[in-house]
Amino acid sequence: MDKRIFIHDVVARDGLQIEPQWVPTERKIELIDRLSATGVAKIEATSFVSPKAVPNLRDAEAVMAGIRRNPAVTYVALVPNARGAERALAADVDEMVLVVSVSETHNRANVRRSVAESFAGFAEVFDVARGSGKAITGALATSFGCPFEGVIPERQVMDGVARYIDQGVAGVTLADTTGMANPRQVEALVRRVRERWPELEIALHFHNTRGMGLANVLAGLAAGVVRYEGCLGGLGGCPFAPGATGNICTEDLVHMLHSMGYATGVDLDLLLATSRRLGEIVGHDLPGQVVKAGKTTDLHPAPPEMASH
Amino acid sequence: MDKRIFIHDVVARDGLQIEPQWVPTERKIELIDRLSATGVAKIEATSFVSPKAVPNLRDAEAVMAGIRRNPAVTYVALVPNARGAERALAADVDEMVLVVSVSETHNRANVRRSVAESFAGFAEVFDVARGSGKAITGALATSFGCPFEGVIPERQVMDGVARYIDQGVAGVTLADTTGMANPRQVEALVRRVRERWPELEIALHFHNTRGMGLANVLAGLAAGVVRYEGCLGGLGGCPFAPGATGNICTEDLVHMLHSMGYATGVDLDLLLATSRRLGEIVGHDLPGQVVKAGKTTDLHPAPPEMASH
Repeated sequence: MDKRIFIHDVVARDGLQIEPQWVPTERKIELIDRLSATGVAKIEATSFVSPKAVPNLRDAEAVMAGIRRNPAVTYVALVPNARGAERALAADVDEMVLVVSVSETHNRANVRRSVAESFAGFAEVFDVARGSGKAITGALATSFGCPFEGVIPERQVMDGVARYIDQGVAGVTLADTTGMANPRQVEALVRRVRERWPELEIALHFHNTRGMGLANVLAGLAAGVVRYEGCLGGLGGCPFAPGATGNICTEDLVHMLHSMGYATGVDLDLLLATSRRLGEIVGHDLPGQVVKAGKTTDLHPAPPEMASH
Repeated sequence: MDKRIFIHDVVARDGLQIEPQWVPTERKIELIDRLSATGVAKIEATSFVSPKAVPNLRDAEAVMAGIRRNPAVTYVALVPNARGAERALAADVDEMVLVVSVSETHNRANVRRSVAESFAGFAEVFDVARGSGKAITGALATSFGCPFEGVIPERQVMDGVARYIDQGVAGVTLADTTGMANPRQVEALVRRVRERWPELEIALHFHNTRGMGLANVLAGLAAGVVRYEGCLGGLGGCPFAPGATGNICTEDLVHMLHSMGYATGVDLDLLLATSRRLGEIVGHDLPGQVVKAGKTTDLHPAPPEMASH
């Protein structure tokens, strides 16, 4: 129970990329700088994709140039291809993350490539990165289900992990891209991956689309995973369901882990303050619960009628 | 994994009692009748408390008289005292549920009695019920934490269970009244109760106030509990935190259990339709996620650009 858990926050990339309103570069920098002080282990800061594909993150270079780096934090950027990797290296990111869906249909819908074409492109990213000393990790989207294809055979996920490992990734993220994972499935699949690659650094990325986000974290913990991605405030959504939530909320995740006695190195109060600031920046309600309800350790005064007892 | 899980819905009592608007008796009856067809095992239909204390449920007799009983469903009502028990028996409920908080401060705030005074009152309820053949169950509020006192010593919860058993309850519900439970605590406390009273029928009542509701269910399942209370749509809230959610959502609970391979006997599609109807009746958004996002098995057509691949 005293195992250290590492928290990765993805709000600046995954949360902001589908935000309906433009968030100014200086607000993004403020957000990342605030997150850098909270004790999270990694911050996914931006994405070096085409500005046409993701207009909200067209300021990737300016964001990376503007943030104050905390040496204890790993600053990650998503890169889709060799061109993105060149930009990310020029911006001096600490780590690059690649993304491919294990579902062919989802990968084509997302990046208009087959899975094989995506991996071929990643080989070029490794070529670009060679000698840079920068780590590259690989994310497998739709690992726990695809909104088009449904359940993904375990073999496809194992194949994806194997291909990434062959290419030389420093770690793999299994992502439940549209919130289809259930705890039984998570525990079984993660155990299988850990059995086959006991030394592999695994991170889990869950969505709370159907309310199971933190239950899936619990299943990941049972399977021995110590790295979890969350999105500050639970910002983001689900492209298939207006009103549905997206990524699990970082502060709710940290709150649960601390309640259970896990150490994360995160200052939860600072994280909650940062989430409130995020609410001001985006100007709308966020799905995070602890910001609204307070921590379980925030006690209330007994009602006044108690005075007479 | 093929263990049968029993679902208790409490929306008609716990959900509606704090609803800001009056819900007409015929709408309550409609809601309970719809729930009766879904396959839930128990329905907490109303509360025989003082109409002054809970004006929203002042039509308890009319509700019980108006519903169509499904013989497969147990219809439960909350009774606070002997007078309530007389009314509940006259209304021919199947089962009565008593509630006391394990926290002295919370019990005084909630019912203006000490814990000992509450149990003394329950003895009168048992006197009234004697010979009626009706089951009485006991709920222990704030079993996993009190908003005034904080963590509740395990001994107090064990004492509460012991007192209820001494009085002759048919089962005990451990309730996380303000959403303070965490999964580690749930598993430890429930295991302790089950070790001491292996034959006791235990139900768990969780709130999702801090996002941990379904994670706590997972912990309850690990500890062997097969009965869970939920509130249709996740209706309700937290008296200490405007905007925070209350009870776990029944349909999200059933959805998770089915995803994991558990049998509940519940028709999830009917339950989802009933939740949508609840949204029309109360006229506002509800916290339930699966209603918004769809089931994980509801697949989407591949995007049109796929046609060319």
